[in-house]
Amino acid sequence: MEEVQLILRNCDAICFDVDSTVIRDEGIDELAKFAGKGSEVASITANAMGGSMTYQDALSVRLNIIKPSLTMVRDFIRTCPPTLTPGIKKLVDVLHTTGRSTYLVSGGFLSLITPVAKQLHIPLENVYANRLKFYFNGDYAGFDENQPTSRTGGKAVVAQHLKDTYGYKNLIFIGDGVTDLESSPPADAFIGYGGNVIRPAVQTKAKWFVTDFNEICDVLLAN
Amino acid sequence: MEEVQLILRNCDAICFDVDSTVIRDEGIDELAKFAGKGSEVASITANAMGGSMTYQDALSVRLNIIKPSLTMVRDFIRTCPPTLTPGIKKLVDVLHTTGRSTYLVSGGFLSLITPVAKQLHIPLENVYANRLKFYFNGDYAGFDENQPTSRTGGKAVVAQHLKDTYGYKNLIFIGDGVTDLESSPPADAFIGYGGNVIRPAVQTKAKWFVTDFNEICDVLLAN
Repeated sequence: MEEVQLILRNCDAICFDVDSTVIRDEGIDELAKFAGKGSEVASITANAMGGSMTYQDALSVRLNIIKPSLTMVRDFIRTCPPTLTPGIKKLVDVLHTTGRSTYLVSGGFLSLITPVAKQLHIPLENVYANRLKFYFNGDYAGFDENQPTSRTGGKAVVAQHLKDTYGYKNLIFIGDGVTDLESSPPADAFIGYGGNVIRPAVQTKAKWFVTDFNEICDVLLAN
Repeated sequence: MEEVQLILRNCDAICFDVDSTVIRDEGIDELAKFAGKGSEVASITANAMGGSMTYQDALSVRLNIIKPSLTMVRDFIRTCPPTLTPGIKKLVDVLHTTGRSTYLVSGGFLSLITPVAKQLHIPLENVYANRLKFYFNGDYAGFDENQPTSRTGGKAVVAQHLKDTYGYKNLIFIGDGVTDLESSPPADAFIGYGGNVIRPAVQTKAKWFVTDFNEICDVLLAN
């Protein structure tokens, strides 16, 4: 824990997972409920978490059930806006005022995360997420399969890319899930977050596991 | 010629090429001009017609130059609506009133062809064309590479599919281009159309070549 906190004090960049970390819910599950396909999609999510299929296959199968049209996504964003997790706004503000770069790195969708990034004043070019595609008439047309976040191990790829591109020496990844945990290394440290949901595998393996973002703020503001 | 006209009199379905056949211009070239990329795209079109790349590659390269956004396509359709070739409306009406099925089969884009189909009262499910994809923010996101019309030989694939699916005994393909000519066989006959542009290879090889749709109407209405 002390080791992670030392890296945190010296960190130059922090990557946040989005679903169940920065926001309270899982975007794809909420979108599925909105489409009336909640239980169908939930069972596949459970399967995917059990490791029986690749992330890309699980994404593809769930999206083919939801078939999110442009209109559906617009209506969903308007009527079910994402709820920020308590404390995240303050933490991101502290990071920005102390000169750290912040990133959102998500296996969810850019269209759903854009409002979150705006609320947190994180520039859109610092958001790594999947991109839905639509036909001219608004029908669902797939997703960008070239995004690293659409693949198993994609978050680690983004972390490495950020270190390579910007030369970050102390890059931290924060999230609730196993894919977040697995982004370190290459991320220099990982902080497990359990304020919305606790994943036992993450809680066990994370060197530092918090349930309140204020714990992180306190360390940053201690000196 | 008599052989083709006999099949025409007995035909149960007619497939029309769209660009330079049913409408006066080539949709992708017009869209390129609208995007300020007319000459760049025209040179690739010329190359593609010379057979130096596959249809899918030529389509991909040209679209990556145009990068048509949702807004661009909407504005293009509004400000540069396609012009029907003289005589096509009357021909399609004659086909419909005499109980023939009509299809639009195009290497162009469904979004640009939909207004054409509506004007001609051809149902949208009878349109085989390529589909542009867009991201949530409207940026260009590629095209549906699974459409047969996006590939070399795709029009012949559609003709065969229609014969297999609906059991057409006398299916005619009408168009100005080599890809239209090559759709017969499997199409039972081909009529070359040169009212907008004459392709020498098509004029030479077509058993029946017309420059006015009324020539076709006259045969259909003769008995």
